[in-house]
Amino acid sequence: MQLVTIDDIRAAAQRIRSHVLRTPLVPAPWGDPERPLWVKPESLQAIGAFKVRGAFNALTAVRERSGSITDVVAYSSGNHAQAVAYAAATFGLRAHIVMPEETPEVKVAATRAHGARVVLCGAGQREAVAADVAADTGGVMIPPFDHPDIIAGQGTIGLEIVDDLPEVATVLVPVSGGGLASGIGVAIKALCPRAVVLGVEPELAADAAEGLRTGERVDWSVSLRNRTVADGLRSQPSELTFAHLRQVLDGMLTVTEDDILSAVREFAQRGHLVAEPSGAVALAAYRQHTTPPGPTVVILSGGNIEPRLLAQALA
Amino acid sequence: MQLVTIDDIRAAAQRIRSHVLRTPLVPAPWGDPERPLWVKPESLQAIGAFKVRGAFNALTAVRERSGSITDVVAYSSGNHAQAVAYAAATFGLRAHIVMPEETPEVKVAATRAHGARVVLCGAGQREAVAADVAADTGGVMIPPFDHPDIIAGQGTIGLEIVDDLPEVATVLVPVSGGGLASGIGVAIKALCPRAVVLGVEPELAADAAEGLRTGERVDWSVSLRNRTVADGLRSQPSELTFAHLRQVLDGMLTVTEDDILSAVREFAQRGHLVAEPSGAVALAAYRQHTTPPGPTVVILSGGNIEPRLLAQALA
Repeated sequence: MQLVTIDDIRAAAQRIRSHVLRTPLVPAPWGDPERPLWVKPESLQAIGAFKVRGAFNALTAVRERSGSITDVVAYSSGNHAQAVAYAAATFGLRAHIVMPEETPEVKVAATRAHGARVVLCGAGQREAVAADVAADTGGVMIPPFDHPDIIAGQGTIGLEIVDDLPEVATVLVPVSGGGLASGIGVAIKALCPRAVVLGVEPELAADAAEGLRTGERVDWSVSLRNRTVADGLRSQPSELTFAHLRQVLDGMLTVTEDDILSAVREFAQRGHLVAEPSGAVALAAYRQHTTPPGPTVVILSGGNIEPRLLAQALA
Repeated sequence: MQLVTIDDIRAAAQRIRSHVLRTPLVPAPWGDPERPLWVKPESLQAIGAFKVRGAFNALTAVRERSGSITDVVAYSSGNHAQAVAYAAATFGLRAHIVMPEETPEVKVAATRAHGARVVLCGAGQREAVAADVAADTGGVMIPPFDHPDIIAGQGTIGLEIVDDLPEVATVLVPVSGGGLASGIGVAIKALCPRAVVLGVEPELAADAAEGLRTGERVDWSVSLRNRTVADGLRSQPSELTFAHLRQVLDGMLTVTEDDILSAVREFAQRGHLVAEPSGAVALAAYRQHTTPPGPTVVILSGGNIEPRLLAQALA
């Protein structure tokens, strides 16, 4: 299986540069002195999450390869949906987005606000429904993680980390479908081979941790994975992303539901950043595990949290 | 009276560059299409507010002029206190910080966490108490706004805005003692003379708006100014900052207490940024007033809000 390369990621960085925020690496002096902390706040992207990077890279690459297209289709628990809707609107394309019924209302509304058509479906049905929609509309499918263009787009975060902090020792990355961790891992291992890259999952959706421990992808049922409050971390790696994770991750850490909500609170109170639960797991792992000493980066992957849940985490 | 110049601000930018975050200008597609919106999130600075810019510039300039110093003194309703404490700790100096008793606990604790000695005092007493502390300790006073080094430090925000968005049409800036608006105004008017710079105050502490309307500085009593929830906007301009504001501001806007809390909510929900009430007035003004068309920047000046108040704004 061919893995994404640092050159693919560099090409992605060129493609997306005028569409995506070059996020700062924010020093967090409230971290542990042995493990000085930096935050990469992808929550500041236009749609509130890193997913715009992969979406713009994939859409631009499809247009380069296929010439003119009119419709795009995506399935997503939320942030990828908004990212594809936003990127499609930027290029004047029609977007059809398939979302599971349990998606937080804030994410459904945000997707519609970008002019996309939203098709709701039952849990576990979204890939099949999206394939039907693509057949009906002739739209190009933009998958949430299982594609080299998506992985390369998310990997641009790794390039920026190394530019800003060449002495980085540890990077903590949320893992769901694994596109983000695959891309960042490829970039970090190519440019800073001594740095440690650790994936983070909720205990309640720790399929990738189990799979990497045993060396084989494992399937957890949708109902098991849907137990976590981190609604963006309920997917599991594909063959493609699992192959990347085996190659580039130094390990996996897991965190509890309480750890996640504490990290949401810490981001708000100390970092002045709004994180959704999925976006807070890397900080949760930093707090709950003895990660290696040295400069440490946590990826704050997204900020689309229901106001009520944020208020509850602050109480 | 000699005003701060663009060269002073450029010199400040050189002095503070290794100590202060170069904040991004974050596009906010949730703004009004006629007035495309960008946010300058100074809440991401190490102490959660822009005040580090002035504090590092003033401390560095004092050390350049006076050689070795050992103690610094400041009085502040909060964010300047933390900024001086943080900058002093960076340089290994002792900091003595005078704060009014009504300062939110989160700001007192944060100031002590930087190793500073905190001296609490009654409302309206802080300048006198700080002068006593300076006399007792031989410390150098770092005023919160009434000094050219402070104004020049805050003005570095204006340089960064013009670098990132040369076509800026309007800049909305909170006004309290006026150091921030003075510095940003000098930079914007020097580099983008056609851009409109508007100051923003709470209605309940609108002394600068009244003063600029009548052409004379006015005094509002401390008890009047202390009515606003925006605890960082309860100071009033000095002769020095008032002279700058008359020169560089195109006008003043005022906002209600409800407008301010709505803007705190909007920053959290749409921008994924935690703003304190004082930090949210520029967005409140953008929403409540018909500001000029064209690219618009709101300064999010700080994020140090009590979690309970943030939770209340989200409800």
